[in-house]
Amino acid sequence: MPDIQSMAHAIRFLALDSILNAREGHQGVPLGMAEIASTLYANHLKADPADPLWPDRDRVVLSNGHGSTLLYALLHLSGYEHVTLEALKSFRKLGSVTAGHPEIEQHAGIEITTGLLGQGIACAVGMAVAEERLAAQFGRDLVDHRTWAFVGDGCLQEGVGQEAISLAGHLQLGKLTFLWDDNHITDDGDTILSISEDVPARFRAAGWHVQELDGHDIPAIDAALSAARDDPRPSLLACRTTIARGIPRLEGQRGGHSAPLTEADSAEARAALNWPHGSFEIPDAVYRDWHDCMAKGKGARKHWQARLDAHPDAQEFQRWTSGSLPDGWEQTAAAQSHAGAVGPDALPTITASGDVCDQLAKALPELFVLCADLEAPTNHKRSRTAFTRQDRNGSYMHCGVREHLMGAMVDGIAAHGGLRPINVTYLAFADYERPAMRMAALMGLPGLFVFSHDSIGVGSNGPTHQPVEILASFRAMPNMRVFRPADAVETAEAWQIAIETSDGPSMLALSRQPAERVRDGADENLTRKGAYVLHEPKNGRDLTLLATGTEVGLATRASAHLAEIGLKAAVVSMPCWELFEAQTEEYRAQVLGTAPRIGIEAAMSFGWERWLRPDDRFIGMQGFGASATADVLYAHFGITVENVISMAREIV
Amino acid sequence: MPDIQSMAHAIRFLALDSILNAREGHQGVPLGMAEIASTLYANHLKADPADPLWPDRDRVVLSNGHGSTLLYALLHLSGYEHVTLEALKSFRKLGSVTAGHPEIEQHAGIEITTGLLGQGIACAVGMAVAEERLAAQFGRDLVDHRTWAFVGDGCLQEGVGQEAISLAGHLQLGKLTFLWDDNHITDDGDTILSISEDVPARFRAAGWHVQELDGHDIPAIDAALSAARDDPRPSLLACRTTIARGIPRLEGQRGGHSAPLTEADSAEARAALNWPHGSFEIPDAVYRDWHDCMAKGKGARKHWQARLDAHPDAQEFQRWTSGSLPDGWEQTAAAQSHAGAVGPDALPTITASGDVCDQLAKALPELFVLCADLEAPTNHKRSRTAFTRQDRNGSYMHCGVREHLMGAMVDGIAAHGGLRPINVTYLAFADYERPAMRMAALMGLPGLFVFSHDSIGVGSNGPTHQPVEILASFRAMPNMRVFRPADAVETAEAWQIAIETSDGPSMLALSRQPAERVRDGADENLTRKGAYVLHEPKNGRDLTLLATGTEVGLATRASAHLAEIGLKAAVVSMPCWELFEAQTEEYRAQVLGTAPRIGIEAAMSFGWERWLRPDDRFIGMQGFGASATADVLYAHFGITVENVISMAREIV
Repeated sequence: MPDIQSMAHAIRFLALDSILNAREGHQGVPLGMAEIASTLYANHLKADPADPLWPDRDRVVLSNGHGSTLLYALLHLSGYEHVTLEALKSFRKLGSVTAGHPEIEQHAGIEITTGLLGQGIACAVGMAVAEERLAAQFGRDLVDHRTWAFVGDGCLQEGVGQEAISLAGHLQLGKLTFLWDDNHITDDGDTILSISEDVPARFRAAGWHVQELDGHDIPAIDAALSAARDDPRPSLLACRTTIARGIPRLEGQRGGHSAPLTEADSAEARAALNWPHGSFEIPDAVYRDWHDCMAKGKGARKHWQARLDAHPDAQEFQRWTSGSLPDGWEQTAAAQSHAGAVGPDALPTITASGDVCDQLAKALPELFVLCADLEAPTNHKRSRTAFTRQDRNGSYMHCGVREHLMGAMVDGIAAHGGLRPINVTYLAFADYERPAMRMAALMGLPGLFVFSHDSIGVGSNGPTHQPVEILASFRAMPNMRVFRPADAVETAEAWQIAIETSDGPSMLALSRQPAERVRDGADENLTRKGAYVLHEPKNGRDLTLLATGTEVGLATRASAHLAEIGLKAAVVSMPCWELFEAQTEEYRAQVLGTAPRIGIEAAMSFGWERWLRPDDRFIGMQGFGASATADVLYAHFGITVENVISMAREIV
Repeated sequence: MPDIQSMAHAIRFLALDSILNAREGHQGVPLGMAEIASTLYANHLKADPADPLWPDRDRVVLSNGHGSTLLYALLHLSGYEHVTLEALKSFRKLGSVTAGHPEIEQHAGIEITTGLLGQGIACAVGMAVAEERLAAQFGRDLVDHRTWAFVGDGCLQEGVGQEAISLAGHLQLGKLTFLWDDNHITDDGDTILSISEDVPARFRAAGWHVQELDGHDIPAIDAALSAARDDPRPSLLACRTTIARGIPRLEGQRGGHSAPLTEADSAEARAALNWPHGSFEIPDAVYRDWHDCMAKGKGARKHWQARLDAHPDAQEFQRWTSGSLPDGWEQTAAAQSHAGAVGPDALPTITASGDVCDQLAKALPELFVLCADLEAPTNHKRSRTAFTRQDRNGSYMHCGVREHLMGAMVDGIAAHGGLRPINVTYLAFADYERPAMRMAALMGLPGLFVFSHDSIGVGSNGPTHQPVEILASFRAMPNMRVFRPADAVETAEAWQIAIETSDGPSMLALSRQPAERVRDGADENLTRKGAYVLHEPKNGRDLTLLATGTEVGLATRASAHLAEIGLKAAVVSMPCWELFEAQTEEYRAQVLGTAPRIGIEAAMSFGWERWLRPDDRFIGMQGFGASATADVLYAHFGITVENVISMAREIV
């Protein structure tokens, strides 16, 4: 039998030593959750540290990410080769795998980036959904793992955490378990300063299986973990713990959270817990216990591999889990692009996006669409059934009015692997899920965020629902591709690029109102260039109209009118600035030209100076929108052909 | 006795007629909540429509803002003069007070803008807090009103709504009542698609008083409202309703939410409910009942006015509620600016901000500081006590780890009037509360959002906690003033401007790490200019260094080094771009100069093209940060004096 208490102390002292060595960090979590973590790993976790990417491994999420040394100690002790003692000694140093908060590095066993509270448990819900969906597709022989999340008080105060509780209960994600570090302390002090709710009752109200226990009582933890595994509901282990347990000066105190540690703390802790070993020194017997415990996972992986080798769907399973695209899939996308090129003269780009999503349902069955209670106006469900409590085979999820959770689930599903998550809602609500989108960009996860109702074109729902600054706010974000397609053709092209992109998220800003068709043919995916000349006048340019989205149609009409009065206006469509910036300087110069320019976008001008010189002009929004129909608003705010023409006359 | 049922039908048909006339809108809420609303107004609401700005009026929030015609019908029937029948006939038309979603217009009785779900109830918590705080200050003779919020299913799914429930229960805001339209329908259809939690149990777990009732049973509603008023806890009325009640084709159906109405619907509803009156036609008797019911409020206001006239604190009360600043307050701010000018050579600007906040505690007792579990690292509590369940006199609130709620409470407190809310957390968490900050900008409310940890200067907490794109994302937002002060002097100046600004929010991006002092004197508030020349070389410029925040100190040092090698570099501090843009073109040209420029900011360059021409340079971030100490990161990312010098040599 392994000595789980000593295994726990090994976590405790590696964390303490790492923090003392780095001169900063958060000891509260690792010292308070050491018994919970060691019991989980010793007797319940399914993982093979020698194969950290094994698709059927249990997922572990440290939602209270400031307690990162808990995870690093666990990964070291359980044998993940990237997390050496040297790595622990490099805690919080540049380039180390042991960053201040866990940064996704699945080869090292770090499943997902955490640190902003609440995100982790929301991502964990996404992982648990991915597991169920994949199991429904490939069977329990290949997919049968659990998601465990370490959870702090802050995660449960955050709204996104509350959304996670609610939806996980609704979906009865029975293989999801939260391990709550109920230590009564947050950064400000006693939790009573800011919360007095009955947390277990809140979970029960959402349909969870709840157990309350002493988080330092190893047999109790062990029994609760077993019960959690046996129960069909998602489980909360409400573990009453002592923060920073083991450091006499700090345990149970506010300072237990992250007060700077001293050598004296270390000595006193070692004395108090009878741990006579030096800094970063772990007895061989303890290492051996850890090693022996992980052997179960190694065996499980071997059996799994044998099942996979014999499985009729092995190849498809491997395709899904490796994230590779099937041969010929792009013909579907290209076909849709062609369809857009011969389809109706004007189609809302959100409808065009729904058409692409439909077409890809067969070619890419790994797509998984999430939508926040806007099925009808966003139109991405048509060819899909819902993923529900009863039916895990659906590829569409009714997320409810929980945008932040939805975005974080995209991250969790993408980090889990095997599915390609697509998020659908209105662009105004992108602000609600922005923190999750930022995490996708930071982690380099291939989420696709589809947004409708991208401008004042929303109409009389008014300024709350009319994005004017949201395009710019995401163009400012590293590693986020912002697409605003002009028509059905560019929409299909943007989808193709987003699906091909595996190292970061993409977002589509799409129109509610019909977008005029501006492209005739679609043999080449011109959206890949980010911007391109849609119309080049013969015999040189007098000016260049730069536009995105629905304003490309407007620019095209303006160009025709200008031709009638003898002004030669090129039209440049700019569906994705990030891709245009990646082109050669020569290409960019050729597209932009040297003639005077007018930028046209139904949004604030912030950022447009990248393409407009001081003497160029911009037609767009000067502030928030208003409540009226789209045509009235376009006229009211001067985003009109007439305005383009009069401005063109001024500057040429 | 008023005929409350007919009063309800008047709401119902005015809403129906408005929507039919506008050809769009959401009938589900007004038709489903007509009895709840009419009972509230008839027997419980304290309001005098003739004095919509009466400070002691009850506040009404339509959190399910898509049901705006409920509010407009209520305001019309109860006698708010701006909401005429003509206004109802102009529903959703440009410039009308009856916008698609309620847009704040307190003269017309519209207390706050709503529409993005969950925000309204979170703002309502802020209003209830403001009431308690003001009552503690001025006594119940002057401040004794309630906050009523109409709430839909979506509001309760949103995380921010869940945060609101939790904190309102914790604080035992007994004068806050939520009227939940429990109609089992959201946009996608039956709520069972996305939620199955026991909502009343969830509220009870948070310490609320919960009553479950039939939302069309007027005596039951009346009794429940009385019980809610009598109970010391915040109250939920869980009102089981039928969506779109009264329209036979739609009631209880998914289409009840917002399916387009027809003339036949109108005729059938009139027949079904025995309402033989024409479109927009309300019988005199019903108008009279409405008028008589509102008379109580008129009387209450007169008595209140008499109490105010006799009150020793009347003048101060009026100063607070009118939002005017006391004479001489700016001397405190200026003194703090002087203190900054002679204080330590380097001070984190978040500490300098705490100093200002301290100094203002006496001069501006109406300041109310909210902080999301970061008291120690943000340092804005020192001279304040906490506002708690037991003590409503405090001017500091421990909001817990609930940033989105905190931001929405700022909106609610500012909309309520009487207090000046200050929000404090880390800049990385601004994304969590961005939707609420956008609402402050849209509404033109004077919230002050103070953020620490504004860059890679955060250090080894790593990229999750290091803003790189957040400055740009808010610079893109209309009506938001983004300050990034260079030192303690500019911090005090920014505070002064923010406090003086009454028509919109301001945000301060402040440093965790010490910021070098760059200003010697502070007789003039130079931050008012947005940007100014901090150092002008004698005999002309070879180049201009433009910088913000902590990088101004770096630019200043670089300028000194450049002088040693014979390069004359001006240093321009740019604490607030929005204010700089408001200066004359001449001033801007003079500040920016014609020499080559280098922009320096530890953030992404997006937006900097506004100040940098194609041949100018930028030193900042190219992507997300990393985990290491601040000095290591500044060196790693090349934001150094050395880099400025070598770049200056290249471009001059």
